[in-house]
Amino acid sequence: MNNNSITKRDEDFAKWYTDVVRAAKLADYTSVKGCIAIEPNGYAIWEKIQSIMDKKFKELGHVNVQMPLLIPENLFNQEKELIEGFAPELVWVTEVGDKKLDERFAIRSTSETVFCDYYKKHITSYKDLPKLYNQWCNVFRYEKETRPFLRSREFLWQEGHTVHATAEEAEKETKQMMDVYKWFNHEILAIPSITGKKTEKEKFAGAEYTLTNEDLMYNGVCLQDGTSHYFGQKFSKAYDVKFTNKENKDEYAYYTTWGKTTRMIAAIIMVHADDYGLVLPPRIAPKQVVIIPIGNDPKVDELANKYKEELLKNDITAYIDDSEKSPGFKFAEAEVNGIPIRIEVGKRDLENNKVTFVRRDTREKIEKTLDVNVVDFTKELLETIQKDMYNRALDRQNKLTFEAHNLEDMEKILNTQPGFIHAMWCGDEACETRIKEIKGCKSRCIVENGEKIDDKCVCCGKEAKHHVIWGIQY
Amino acid sequence: MNNNSITKRDEDFAKWYTDVVRAAKLADYTSVKGCIAIEPNGYAIWEKIQSIMDKKFKELGHVNVQMPLLIPENLFNQEKELIEGFAPELVWVTEVGDKKLDERFAIRSTSETVFCDYYKKHITSYKDLPKLYNQWCNVFRYEKETRPFLRSREFLWQEGHTVHATAEEAEKETKQMMDVYKWFNHEILAIPSITGKKTEKEKFAGAEYTLTNEDLMYNGVCLQDGTSHYFGQKFSKAYDVKFTNKENKDEYAYYTTWGKTTRMIAAIIMVHADDYGLVLPPRIAPKQVVIIPIGNDPKVDELANKYKEELLKNDITAYIDDSEKSPGFKFAEAEVNGIPIRIEVGKRDLENNKVTFVRRDTREKIEKTLDVNVVDFTKELLETIQKDMYNRALDRQNKLTFEAHNLEDMEKILNTQPGFIHAMWCGDEACETRIKEIKGCKSRCIVENGEKIDDKCVCCGKEAKHHVIWGIQY
Repeated sequence: MNNNSITKRDEDFAKWYTDVVRAAKLADYTSVKGCIAIEPNGYAIWEKIQSIMDKKFKELGHVNVQMPLLIPENLFNQEKELIEGFAPELVWVTEVGDKKLDERFAIRSTSETVFCDYYKKHITSYKDLPKLYNQWCNVFRYEKETRPFLRSREFLWQEGHTVHATAEEAEKETKQMMDVYKWFNHEILAIPSITGKKTEKEKFAGAEYTLTNEDLMYNGVCLQDGTSHYFGQKFSKAYDVKFTNKENKDEYAYYTTWGKTTRMIAAIIMVHADDYGLVLPPRIAPKQVVIIPIGNDPKVDELANKYKEELLKNDITAYIDDSEKSPGFKFAEAEVNGIPIRIEVGKRDLENNKVTFVRRDTREKIEKTLDVNVVDFTKELLETIQKDMYNRALDRQNKLTFEAHNLEDMEKILNTQPGFIHAMWCGDEACETRIKEIKGCKSRCIVENGEKIDDKCVCCGKEAKHHVIWGIQY
Repeated sequence: MNNNSITKRDEDFAKWYTDVVRAAKLADYTSVKGCIAIEPNGYAIWEKIQSIMDKKFKELGHVNVQMPLLIPENLFNQEKELIEGFAPELVWVTEVGDKKLDERFAIRSTSETVFCDYYKKHITSYKDLPKLYNQWCNVFRYEKETRPFLRSREFLWQEGHTVHATAEEAEKETKQMMDVYKWFNHEILAIPSITGKKTEKEKFAGAEYTLTNEDLMYNGVCLQDGTSHYFGQKFSKAYDVKFTNKENKDEYAYYTTWGKTTRMIAAIIMVHADDYGLVLPPRIAPKQVVIIPIGNDPKVDELANKYKEELLKNDITAYIDDSEKSPGFKFAEAEVNGIPIRIEVGKRDLENNKVTFVRRDTREKIEKTLDVNVVDFTKELLETIQKDMYNRALDRQNKLTFEAHNLEDMEKILNTQPGFIHAMWCGDEACETRIKEIKGCKSRCIVENGEKIDDKCVCCGKEAKHHVIWGIQY
């Protein structure tokens, strides 16, 4: 894959994005419209995401399960709010072989109904609580506009579904899982997301409230990247999930759900990638170091192998590109695939007592003498890259963070350079609707304990209640 | 869960099986007929299966991908043999929201069509080959009779799909992956499966030939547990998967697929479990050791914690059951859940300088003095249990392995005690059909380089060509 085939990011962001997906061989289109094939390079990132998140979930006491893909229509209908939100995007199974089924089945677009149906049967007493279940699976939403990873009809995710004996405990869980998502984005993906509460208008259908993790892409467009919902007793009432509490009285259980999806891969691209292709933060890179031997020389091969073995022994995922391609081609391929560090070793380098490390994020070449401690230096460099990538993303985010005090401010910002827009809001949905008229700008989240940056609502001028972050979304 | 609620295995095997599934909390029925919820205890076994198999696949150069769940009808129709085999079990998506779709989509029952459609686009030259792809996913087959894990409408599996530039290489892959499956059953699941080639009648629709891994359950019924198919160029011709070979000529690619499913959990149960519940081979047990402190005593807790920490440090998955249940209840629960080793520590034991290890497989109690090296002893005991479980399963399998020389032999065996029946066969499908009349007995596999145990076909008496293993199947 030649780097030249990637459209410049500043020229056409949307085309640049799909070029990077294709050039780094992350995913491809298929014969099913709106559904992608996640290719080895893309799926390896997802596996890495899964392994880190899953470990954290389990440390916090969660266990994995697998619920059915199909949902009977009558089960879905029990919770009206949910079906109304999802109805237009639901796909229905109606036939088996050449026979019509008596009842339609929806392919899950989310599994609240299924989990509640399960919990209803399996919870009797407060002693059965909490249940801290999660599942990794595929879901289906028939979206009109699709883009690889960003918005696919089928996507992969994890969905946590927990039930608790008290509201406090459930709310603590809702908050805790949002903290986990934020930690994951900041520490692992090097994405400085912001978190907060969704407004009533933007919250998940049927939830009491929704906490959200919002990323800012390089082009200033916002991306919702992980939500954690507190349902209170709403769903347990609709699905009859009851337990006997300590006072020996029947009580409806307190319910939370939280999910994060393959959309994270879109976020990694749109925050970190550049005109040369993908750039992977070291902590999420399936392969952290590629060693490229230059020229056919036993001594070069020996050194390359020594480096590889030493790095692998120290839990750094290194590999040698010993394919028959030219060094130049290998450099470009490592670059387009976003491998954080490339180590070049050649015959002439050995004679000159040097080895070259190339950072993918800055494309900087670092020459070291052959007595370099390759493990220590690589480890340190990976940490530096991780930190620098976070800081660069944060700088960009700060640069694209604005403050608005009235609709003219809003319009000016959105017409010049969109981003995170801080502005006060009265709490009235009408104002959200009015603001949405400006390029589809929506409230991203209410900042918790947000500083009062104005007394008046950015839209109507009435008394402001909340500090809200606004933006155009994917 | 009280052990008494499990039906005796020798009384009613089918009921015993579902009792074990329920008592060990592996899975439960759901509102979708024929689809199960895999509960935490069951899913943890699947996660362990995945991690070990996936590691092996990757060591052999395979990479994971994720293809779409839905298959357009016209794509399916391109390979007639495949659709005819699967058509009655396919479920179809026909509606989205309240609108009818122009074309039906099948939910994948297997993904040959989807992978070939992908490879068609991505393979140009022999330099692109081999492609060694695998995916872990859910599939759907609308079976009439279902039983948890054994036969579910939806199940989880891995499906390997590889394409090669030569027939030799593809056949080598087909054989290699069957060897991996056999290794996994023998070494990890402690199940002494047999492998061989399916007859034409029993092979996978559309394959040139099918290799199969066959287990024998405690009751003498056979279970197909993993297959590896060689397709030659059949599918590549149907789906136009071509490449330019080294001679610069167009050639159709050589294709293999191989799969193993959540059915393995059924095999573990039906080979190893007993009247007291599940019995897990140590290498597949998500939790290998449970430590049960008896009585409230700080010294007891201290020792339990010390044991746990030491075992965990040595990669033995140990946990303490410090719930509020009675020791008797905890013993029974550890037993029904099949935890390989239970360590009991009590105040009186400490005074008497002893600690008790209980093997789940034999229920034997082993008393040791407190100076026991808990890590060494546990490690050794886990290995002993693993080996003994395999040997007991092999003894049982040998006991239920018979030889037949004519139809009367066959009938007598099948009417007394079914099992693996060795018998010679002429190669004529009519004889397979005739034998099937005896309690549905089918050929399991042709033994490779099988000893000639008779000159004549067990059915028609004509010249025998193959040494075949027969049996009644799930």
